[in-house]
Amino acid sequence: MHAPKHFQELIEKEIASLSFPSSPAELYDPIRYMLELGGKRLRPALALMAHELFGGDPQKIIRPALALEVFHNFTLMHDDIMDRAPLRRSQATVHTKWNPNTAILSGDTMFVKSCQLMLQADSQHRSNVMELFLKTAEEVCEGQQLDMNFELRESVGISEYIEMISLKTAVLLGCALKVGSILAGAKTEDSNLMYAFGKNIGIAFQLHDDILDLYAESSKFGKQTGGDVLANKKTILLILALKNGSNEDYRKLKYWIDDNSSKPSEKITAVREIFEQLNVRSLAEQEMEKYFQIAMNDFQKVNVEPSRKEMLSQLVERLMVREV
Amino acid sequence: MHAPKHFQELIEKEIASLSFPSSPAELYDPIRYMLELGGKRLRPALALMAHELFGGDPQKIIRPALALEVFHNFTLMHDDIMDRAPLRRSQATVHTKWNPNTAILSGDTMFVKSCQLMLQADSQHRSNVMELFLKTAEEVCEGQQLDMNFELRESVGISEYIEMISLKTAVLLGCALKVGSILAGAKTEDSNLMYAFGKNIGIAFQLHDDILDLYAESSKFGKQTGGDVLANKKTILLILALKNGSNEDYRKLKYWIDDNSSKPSEKITAVREIFEQLNVRSLAEQEMEKYFQIAMNDFQKVNVEPSRKEMLSQLVERLMVREV
Repeated sequence: MHAPKHFQELIEKEIASLSFPSSPAELYDPIRYMLELGGKRLRPALALMAHELFGGDPQKIIRPALALEVFHNFTLMHDDIMDRAPLRRSQATVHTKWNPNTAILSGDTMFVKSCQLMLQADSQHRSNVMELFLKTAEEVCEGQQLDMNFELRESVGISEYIEMISLKTAVLLGCALKVGSILAGAKTEDSNLMYAFGKNIGIAFQLHDDILDLYAESSKFGKQTGGDVLANKKTILLILALKNGSNEDYRKLKYWIDDNSSKPSEKITAVREIFEQLNVRSLAEQEMEKYFQIAMNDFQKVNVEPSRKEMLSQLVERLMVREV
Repeated sequence: MHAPKHFQELIEKEIASLSFPSSPAELYDPIRYMLELGGKRLRPALALMAHELFGGDPQKIIRPALALEVFHNFTLMHDDIMDRAPLRRSQATVHTKWNPNTAILSGDTMFVKSCQLMLQADSQHRSNVMELFLKTAEEVCEGQQLDMNFELRESVGISEYIEMISLKTAVLLGCALKVGSILAGAKTEDSNLMYAFGKNIGIAFQLHDDILDLYAESSKFGKQTGGDVLANKKTILLILALKNGSNEDYRKLKYWIDDNSSKPSEKITAVREIFEQLNVRSLAEQEMEKYFQIAMNDFQKVNVEPSRKEMLSQLVERLMVREV
């Protein structure tokens, strides 16, 4: 069994070898730019690792694995337009560096490309993985829509929030692990367990991100902490605080949400204080831990020699403790 | 063999029966709205007619045929954002009625849906039609990019223009006819001839549209004539005029292109006059006729009893003479 690093190198090499037409440059340059911004390549790595777990040769599914990365980057390109995000991985987003029209059309083309890559799966399982991939793509769109809807709502329930992050980010991790499993000929029961493992670990990752955004050491996290607070994002922290607080806490939080004039640091400090009184960090960590345990429990049930699972276990555990 | 009207009714019924989730409404309402705006349903009709031509039962490929219509409407939804078009089929465009973010995300979801519909093709030919469909989708994106590029350029060559409209609109007609043929088990030679027939007829249709925009009787065409002139669109008419005119004609045309202050009717009259002197309408009609003949020539070569071809011949001929 190979370490994640091995797969990441494999993926980088394969991404570099993806050939896009040189013309029209306005269409393909942003795609190359986006794919070269880097990142952990987590989704294809998960697909390759799941494939190896069931005895498959990862090199044989590198194209379908890349489909997941290209698709993920397509969603980032379009989400960045919708969220008016200026930066992605510390670089200008495509709609800022070029323009929104370019980001729309290059994004569309990336999505086409991702389908073409997935269609290169072995013919025996091709329809099966295509169906899963398209179903997942549909869910990711639904998740993004729910996320935008929540921004306009006064309050959001915890289960609604979990459903949203599940659709927007977690199902794609489930899809990645299941695609890798199916293509290795895993039994339906096992590939379904891998899907559940991926989905729940994805939920735990997102909750972790929410917590890190406020509580990470900023030097390690790579961006300023408290960004979500400043943007009034409905993260698990804010949702828990609004749910558990007294009327007085609610009033105070609403005051800071509506506030546009204070210094950023003042707003972050004030909101942190309310969160602290309500023990929000610990509650969020409990929620995160719950999904992590559900995930690991399903992974344990997968009918594969336990020693083969170590690399994947180590990877997800390392991702869960990163830089808090 | 059935008349186009029969297929259009079949398609309308099937579109009405397409079930989309009710939630999130913000995602699926615009999709329903777009699909209910109507239109000729030309692409799925072509697929069904090609299928019947080769002895297939159209009812059996209704889902893959719909994929073409849903895909077409996805491209319209995104193109309308990029072109800042306020109206589509005399109704508000999605990005105007809702907002650009909605049009981006609902469009993405429509594309997913179109792939799901195409994936319902018979397993024997599924990969074949999926590959063709995705290749076509890629080309349509390239065509839209070229169209946007051309807007910013001073001049465009005739062959460049033909290449652009071929990608942006014609290949999808070729794809529709070829998908219908492949799924009926047509020989490769015949399905390739059907593709060429569709692509060249598509080029002729677009040239026809360019001519109609200025020379149709507006009451029949359903919109004000001269819209392309007012928008300085590089249609076959303007391209021919810029190519064939003297330096003096070129200067005059440039004057009117740069003009923003005259009355619309004044601009249209002036440009029409230059076109008339340069015999541009007739040259454009010759170009159109050329592609129409290439198309019909390929169609004639298709190895099917000539009487079976009558419905399709009548349809494309009727579309070519409409309302000039």
